[in-house]
Amino acid sequence: MSPSTRARPWWPSLPVLQWGRAYNRETLLGDGVAALIVTIMLIPQSLAYAMLAGLPPEVGLYASVAPLLLYAVFGTSRVLAVGPVAVVSLMTAAAIAEHAAAGTPAYWAVAITLAFLSGLLLLAMGLLRLGFLANFLSHPVISGFISASGILIAASQLKTLMGVKAEGHNFVELSLSLGSQAGQVHGLTLLIGALTVAFLFWVRSGLKPLLQRLGMAPRTADVVAKTGPVVAIAVTTLLAWGLDWPAQGVKIVGAVPQGLPPFTLPLWDLGLWQQLLVPALLISVVGFVESVSVGQTLAAKRRQRIEPDQELVALGSGNLSAAFTGGFPVTGGFARSVVNFDAGAQTPAAGVFTAVGITLASLFLTPALYYLPQATLAATIVVAVLSLVDFSVLRKTWGYAKPDFLAVAATLVATLAVGVETGLVVGVALSLAFYLYRTSRPHMAEVGRVAGTEHFRNVQRHAVVVSPRVLGLRVDESLYFANSRALEDRINDAVASRPELAHVVLQCSAINDIDASALESLEAIDLRLRGAGLRLHLSEVKGPVMDRLKHTDFMRQLSGRVFLTHYQAIQALSPGVG
Amino acid sequence: MSPSTRARPWWPSLPVLQWGRAYNRETLLGDGVAALIVTIMLIPQSLAYAMLAGLPPEVGLYASVAPLLLYAVFGTSRVLAVGPVAVVSLMTAAAIAEHAAAGTPAYWAVAITLAFLSGLLLLAMGLLRLGFLANFLSHPVISGFISASGILIAASQLKTLMGVKAEGHNFVELSLSLGSQAGQVHGLTLLIGALTVAFLFWVRSGLKPLLQRLGMAPRTADVVAKTGPVVAIAVTTLLAWGLDWPAQGVKIVGAVPQGLPPFTLPLWDLGLWQQLLVPALLISVVGFVESVSVGQTLAAKRRQRIEPDQELVALGSGNLSAAFTGGFPVTGGFARSVVNFDAGAQTPAAGVFTAVGITLASLFLTPALYYLPQATLAATIVVAVLSLVDFSVLRKTWGYAKPDFLAVAATLVATLAVGVETGLVVGVALSLAFYLYRTSRPHMAEVGRVAGTEHFRNVQRHAVVVSPRVLGLRVDESLYFANSRALEDRINDAVASRPELAHVVLQCSAINDIDASALESLEAIDLRLRGAGLRLHLSEVKGPVMDRLKHTDFMRQLSGRVFLTHYQAIQALSPGVG
Repeated sequence: MSPSTRARPWWPSLPVLQWGRAYNRETLLGDGVAALIVTIMLIPQSLAYAMLAGLPPEVGLYASVAPLLLYAVFGTSRVLAVGPVAVVSLMTAAAIAEHAAAGTPAYWAVAITLAFLSGLLLLAMGLLRLGFLANFLSHPVISGFISASGILIAASQLKTLMGVKAEGHNFVELSLSLGSQAGQVHGLTLLIGALTVAFLFWVRSGLKPLLQRLGMAPRTADVVAKTGPVVAIAVTTLLAWGLDWPAQGVKIVGAVPQGLPPFTLPLWDLGLWQQLLVPALLISVVGFVESVSVGQTLAAKRRQRIEPDQELVALGSGNLSAAFTGGFPVTGGFARSVVNFDAGAQTPAAGVFTAVGITLASLFLTPALYYLPQATLAATIVVAVLSLVDFSVLRKTWGYAKPDFLAVAATLVATLAVGVETGLVVGVALSLAFYLYRTSRPHMAEVGRVAGTEHFRNVQRHAVVVSPRVLGLRVDESLYFANSRALEDRINDAVASRPELAHVVLQCSAINDIDASALESLEAIDLRLRGAGLRLHLSEVKGPVMDRLKHTDFMRQLSGRVFLTHYQAIQALSPGVG
Repeated sequence: MSPSTRARPWWPSLPVLQWGRAYNRETLLGDGVAALIVTIMLIPQSLAYAMLAGLPPEVGLYASVAPLLLYAVFGTSRVLAVGPVAVVSLMTAAAIAEHAAAGTPAYWAVAITLAFLSGLLLLAMGLLRLGFLANFLSHPVISGFISASGILIAASQLKTLMGVKAEGHNFVELSLSLGSQAGQVHGLTLLIGALTVAFLFWVRSGLKPLLQRLGMAPRTADVVAKTGPVVAIAVTTLLAWGLDWPAQGVKIVGAVPQGLPPFTLPLWDLGLWQQLLVPALLISVVGFVESVSVGQTLAAKRRQRIEPDQELVALGSGNLSAAFTGGFPVTGGFARSVVNFDAGAQTPAAGVFTAVGITLASLFLTPALYYLPQATLAATIVVAVLSLVDFSVLRKTWGYAKPDFLAVAATLVATLAVGVETGLVVGVALSLAFYLYRTSRPHMAEVGRVAGTEHFRNVQRHAVVVSPRVLGLRVDESLYFANSRALEDRINDAVASRPELAHVVLQCSAINDIDASALESLEAIDLRLRGAGLRLHLSEVKGPVMDRLKHTDFMRQLSGRVFLTHYQAIQALSPGVG
């Protein structure tokens, strides 16, 4: 039984009751400072990721209020920063593209519906304790998917950086579309974009050491460096206004409605829901995995725990709230949560304060965003997502496990060549297929006794003692429908090729389960051995396996015996050798 | 490595060269007698199964010639009788229904195309050595599917037995459709059908004992009993002609074209191929599994072997030949192969002789079938398929393994309620899902030493000796992406709850593989233990696992040691207790 299901009631808990009771001035200070820094980081990110999702910038702000409040009530991580994130925004754009044109009210309505469905799915998974499903996304597949998504996102922003129109939901389409537009590149836009990218890279790599050399504390230097995107936005917005860049063809954000997040409803269209179901599921799972990974990493640093099933409830209610307040799918973001942690956030109240900050921004700051060049937002996205790209997993898995390598390579290629949904499905399907394939061809070793011990090992790897009358066979896999025939074949072969054989002893130390198909195979093996004058014995059968076996016809009719240890079996059946 | 891939070249073999060389008068006699009996059995079956598939009766004869010749050349079973079979005919009808109306030339053309695709798929699977894929159909799922198919087939024949029109591809549709026709039942047709069913049941159960009491040898009595359907056909055909039943509204087979199987081509329509791909795959896999099961059962009785991958080639070329000679999907039939075996067939030449017999029938016998009542054919189908229905698997799996029970129950329900394709996919998906679910929550046992031995067992099941400073943990499952987090959780919990703990020893006797995700988890566990002042050790790591581990960073940086046996580990780390 896993710890997350051990002592918990079936209803979701309210972690806010725990941390809320212990709230004091010290936690308030830590949360307040962290919230301020996260707010400064979140404003440009929320605008940019809304744009990446094909939505008006204010939608990013809307998605950064209610979900943070709900997460503070239900979430188990003390420091997770919820809101729009790059990969989920990319997946949102891919999911909506088939249903509406970007920038239209219909597109926004589908985004709201997607957040609603994603929230329902997450909530249902949480209440049904299905958090374990995320474990079926293997580390290499996630890693390949995130890298490919980073590349796709960066490629999708090139059009904005170059001031051209281009479309596509995979790398091939995007490249072709951009290539055909190469002649229309807008020089000034490209210059703004390139300079902003260069500035942001410098802020990430060069500014912090510089500030430290100038005597600033490393922690403070870190925080200052996080303001880079806000500085870039402020400077380019002022320049666009002062130099009248729009008149020279530079695209700006334009009028952003001022006000609180609106009350919205998802589209009640069952046909649409059906079509959005798979994308919503993929968005939910990817968002959950990303969120839980960062949540667990940060919790471990302070010896805290997070509850995956409760996290599903928290993210689910967060996404539902996004759907009712004009938002789009959200989850816990990696970079933002790390900043929140480093800046000293103590409780989810930091998220509440961040939500207040974003509300103030959407009430008062939006007019100031009128002249913000779109290329600046694109530049912040490009710099943010390139840190997601990490190909080291290819090298690592190539050296250690070829199936893992193939799964990650296929995920990368399929995501880039076809799109995010296909890439993810291919990765999960391949990694499961490789696992099933491996377990369907189990490693089987004939074992013999290591002289002078009671220990038995593979005859092909160790100098061991064997008897010609007894075959000791260890199957290194649970027996189930996909591999039970392999065992039949192996024993048939052994019996056919060794005329002096009288006993077969299955050493069951590595057999963790025997399903109904395998039980039938064992019955068939026993029957055939008996017919040929041999006997089948079992040794080292595990407790849970024996519990179920002992009531079966197979056990009642077994031609041989069951031994506690393989040593005892060999002593009994072949005393001279054992 | 499984025996079927050990020493074989990549190209398909020609078993005919082996048995053909040793052919003599004795094998000729055995094959000839068997072929005669199988031909007598196959004529009514091929007509009936063509009708079940929605095709004209002569198509059943066409499908019973070329595939038998091809199987004789490529097949590895000495006694498998290839031709139309009930379940595959039902699946064929379900697959074609969406594309054409039964009885039309277009319908026949789709059936030919389906045989072509199925042949291509089987051949490709054989050349790529994918025979192991059939292992993923678990015994209980096959058993539930076959039973449900039997019920569906019997229900689909009720309309012909009652002389009404009814349609449907699942039990619900068929029942509703039959119910609405209850008023139109044709009395004479029902009488013919009911009497034929009663006669055939009596032949199966009552005739053989009677003949034996009359002094006939059991073997001969068995053979005579197999002629029941032919007798029923002859008698009802004569009665229909003599009493002019067609004038009284009894439907007859009518004009059946006389002549050799025609040369036909599949439809070259990529769109259609795409739609038929999944049905063709399911038909291929089900046909292959049915064929291999009976082939192996019969081969084992004579200590022969069959080669699954070569069987794929044989069935694939058989189905391709069916497509070019006006046939529909075929495979090795259970009942017919058993008869062939019992009647003394020695080599696949029996199949060649059967093909000759069927050719003669389609050349000269077809005019005699004009007055054959359709209800007679329906009766032979009903009696044949009811022997497929066997619910004992429900009781067996309920007692032994609930997941297997759920898989077989879902297969049954889905096949009856929705249809054959859905039923099969649901069954396979569920059985795989249950297997994956189980392996994602591995059984983990803390182990201690059985006093006086070098053996370690679960502390909760045995009286064993443990040390408070050493945690011995046995994971009863290979470590892979879906369960590696469970191990992290378990060790985290143990460390948090046992302050005196200094060593964790993973007993790896049941770990048959560690994938890249699990390796990352082990690295994380080692790092965390080291940070808390503990050390991680491994014991009883298997050869194949250690081969890959020894080149990893994890192994180089491991805080503890690797021990050959768990006993040595405990002796070294906790001498007082070990």
